[in-house]
Amino acid sequence: MSNLPLYQELHDHILRYINSHEYPENGLLPSERDMCQMYKVSRSTVRQALALLEEENMVYTIHGIGTFVKPKVFEQNLSQFYSFTDALKKMNISFYNRVLSYETLIPGRSLALKLKADRKVTYHKLVRLCFARDYPLIIETTYLPKNRFVHIDVNATESQSLYDYLSAKYGLKVDHATETFVPILPDSEQCELLKISPRIPCLQLERFSYEDGCLVEYTSSVVRGDKYVFKIELNNQNNQK
Amino acid sequence: MSNLPLYQELHDHILRYINSHEYPENGLLPSERDMCQMYKVSRSTVRQALALLEEENMVYTIHGIGTFVKPKVFEQNLSQFYSFTDALKKMNISFYNRVLSYETLIPGRSLALKLKADRKVTYHKLVRLCFARDYPLIIETTYLPKNRFVHIDVNATESQSLYDYLSAKYGLKVDHATETFVPILPDSEQCELLKISPRIPCLQLERFSYEDGCLVEYTSSVVRGDKYVFKIELNNQNNQK
Repeated sequence: MSNLPLYQELHDHILRYINSHEYPENGLLPSERDMCQMYKVSRSTVRQALALLEEENMVYTIHGIGTFVKPKVFEQNLSQFYSFTDALKKMNISFYNRVLSYETLIPGRSLALKLKADRKVTYHKLVRLCFARDYPLIIETTYLPKNRFVHIDVNATESQSLYDYLSAKYGLKVDHATETFVPILPDSEQCELLKISPRIPCLQLERFSYEDGCLVEYTSSVVRGDKYVFKIELNNQNNQK
Repeated sequence: MSNLPLYQELHDHILRYINSHEYPENGLLPSERDMCQMYKVSRSTVRQALALLEEENMVYTIHGIGTFVKPKVFEQNLSQFYSFTDALKKMNISFYNRVLSYETLIPGRSLALKLKADRKVTYHKLVRLCFARDYPLIIETTYLPKNRFVHIDVNATESQSLYDYLSAKYGLKVDHATETFVPILPDSEQCELLKISPRIPCLQLERFSYEDGCLVEYTSSVVRGDKYVFKIELNNQNNQK
């Protein structure tokens, strides 16, 4: 027997089950009563173990129902230009992008305003659903000017980031981008695609990417708020020499 | 008479009323029928003017009810360390912070984990509600270590940013901070404080500020999602020499 307090042993045991997905994300843990019987421990030991897991952000409790496994969250660092696909690749998380629709179009008045575009320029419009492991994470709607990218092989964008594809095929070099973040409640179509309840708030991201001062990409993304945390490092230039 | 098309004249007229707050934020505009009579123009002219305003993001329509003035949104640039109060000051927007509660405490286990703090260190806990013009915008819960800031004059933080106060009184020089962004639905207390419906998603921000490598501030904020847009400039270091 180890020297750990009982509740700590139970905590470690449950944690192993969570990490091995034996207790899956958003899955209900056995009830306190069942745990007492399963592990031959007192109710207060079970409560201490669950309280510790909750403090560690591994589980959450819904009053009157029970304790659930908290889904793992991805952290996206905003210190420099990034792509979700490349970030997942770096974390060794399997991903793929499913193309939902593709067309070419001349922007309507509202889109043209956004793109500050001449209404004679044709754009590719590509809508993709990005999966990490096996669950949908992001809906991305991308506009690309046809005068910079003549032809888009949409299937090629399913297994790699759009930037990798465009950089290999067209030598794209984005030098900077602006991105805005607004919290939204997903509409019914977005809920269905992301397989979430309409009460899960999401982040709507709008990205404008530039190459030599020209807009080469506009993407509007809806990112699941329960799976992604955005993180930024803020330097205080006033206090730096 | 001007040479502008009629709908453009009407558009400009309504826009002046919006900008002068004669038509207030979230206020219902006169109905299409009323506008036809007021301005002696056709229904299609009114519709064109409203469509243009909607494209410009100045108004929004609720089907079956009418057209409303869209609330103005603040844009916060995340390129460097910022304070909401200072940002509002720069935009010449009147603001004040109402202190909701103040206490000193020794962190519980969960907070100590977050602060990576010794559980013998005492912290100030300050909860403020930040107003821009006259509406509540942000709920800020701040923890400050007492061994760095012996005494906090909470009233002094109502009319200035916390950083200005701490820098004047204690010579605080934050050199960097990390901030995370997660979309949330406000709980009933937050809705009441921010005077929003529970269907307005907010952003929860967590900031950890450091001075010479030491944590000097932890703030958890709830920011109204309908009033704030966060913007970031992303540079592509891979493409820079």
